[in-house]
Amino acid sequence: TRDAWDYFNHLYQFRLESPAPVAGGGRRTAENGTLQGDMRKLLLDGQLSDVTFVVEGRRIHAHRAVLGARCEYFRAMFESGMVESRSNEIEVSDASHGVFSAMLLYVYTGTVEVADEDAVELMYIAAKYDLAPLKALTERHITRKITAANVSAIILAADVHSASELKRTCLDYIVKEFGRVIDTDAFVALAGKSPELAKEILQYGAANLCFSLR
Amino acid sequence: TRDAWDYFNHLYQFRLESPAPVAGGGRRTAENGTLQGDMRKLLLDGQLSDVTFVVEGRRIHAHRAVLGARCEYFRAMFESGMVESRSNEIEVSDASHGVFSAMLLYVYTGTVEVADEDAVELMYIAAKYDLAPLKALTERHITRKITAANVSAIILAADVHSASELKRTCLDYIVKEFGRVIDTDAFVALAGKSPELAKEILQYGAANLCFSLR
Repeated sequence: TRDAWDYFNHLYQFRLESPAPVAGGGRRTAENGTLQGDMRKLLLDGQLSDVTFVVEGRRIHAHRAVLGARCEYFRAMFESGMVESRSNEIEVSDASHGVFSAMLLYVYTGTVEVADEDAVELMYIAAKYDLAPLKALTERHITRKITAANVSAIILAADVHSASELKRTCLDYIVKEFGRVIDTDAFVALAGKSPELAKEILQYGAANLCFSLR
Repeated sequence: TRDAWDYFNHLYQFRLESPAPVAGGGRRTAENGTLQGDMRKLLLDGQLSDVTFVVEGRRIHAHRAVLGARCEYFRAMFESGMVESRSNEIEVSDASHGVFSAMLLYVYTGTVEVADEDAVELMYIAAKYDLAPLKALTERHITRKITAANVSAIILAADVHSASELKRTCLDYIVKEFGRVIDTDAFVALAGKSPELAKEILQYGAANLCFSLR
């Protein structure tokens, strides 16, 4: 809409913003009337939906305009003549219901809520759907939250989803806390699930510990 | 989508937010990737539009999902069997193109940009479309910006749009600055446009000045 751009480029006389939603607090915050709150409700209620995702057999009702506005991947899908653009139902096979829902919530609100154990998968899905800001946010969050207790689970997820930077961050953390990490049940569990990764960690640890003890 | 509500009510393990857009700065701020920036672009570019407003002969391409999510008035329009809900083109006769665009920008972004001289009409339109937060924001803004030079124009607009609280605020301001306001060209212009309002102001001023001089 050329007209609209012209209009808004000629007057910035005043600018009003709704108060930001209150951080924290109860589970369902009273964000009615704020952009984030209304967009969140739009996704969760699915009103006026014109596209449906089917994820792990469950339906999520969404809106082409919002998806297209926020995500190049979806814009291309809806604007092109792709198979999915003609159908109103899109089968999603590359994500769990929880992580896909979390990604959509980010698309609608700029905010994401997800369990720590799903964070790495979310990072992987964000990359897959070309949502670079979400990928960066998630990666930064995970990095900040690494502990001796969870680093084994995180590196396992990073390995599965080929998140090489995060994997390297975990390796460096493990070197720093080698004794504590190797002693955890989580590391034992990791060794059971992926002996190759356990071996890689031990080799990396040994190599770097030698170096730092020199 | 019951599923989605259930999901998000059971885990608030972590919450990530995009950085807020930088305030002020250039005309077109680099808000790409933020919710506000993307929603603004959606409105101004009109991509994936499914409803068009015609205002003063000019078209604005919009999106039912966003309008319905943010404004009860539009939700009712699109969900009911109203004439407008079946057509993709809605003729708007109660607003200027600029003010209607400003209202839509608020709906899409939670932020509004408008020339001072359009602010009272925006307030009026916000009330008409049941956008209480926008009405309140605009009224507060106008009240803060009243000066001896602009109070005559504002009270004239408030009178035309039956904004009685704002009109009363202006009257009280005029009483406080009676001599300065009555001397301005704007007051002379007002008297030309609406002799009834000028008379009302002078009577209110005289009555309240007497009282405060006693």
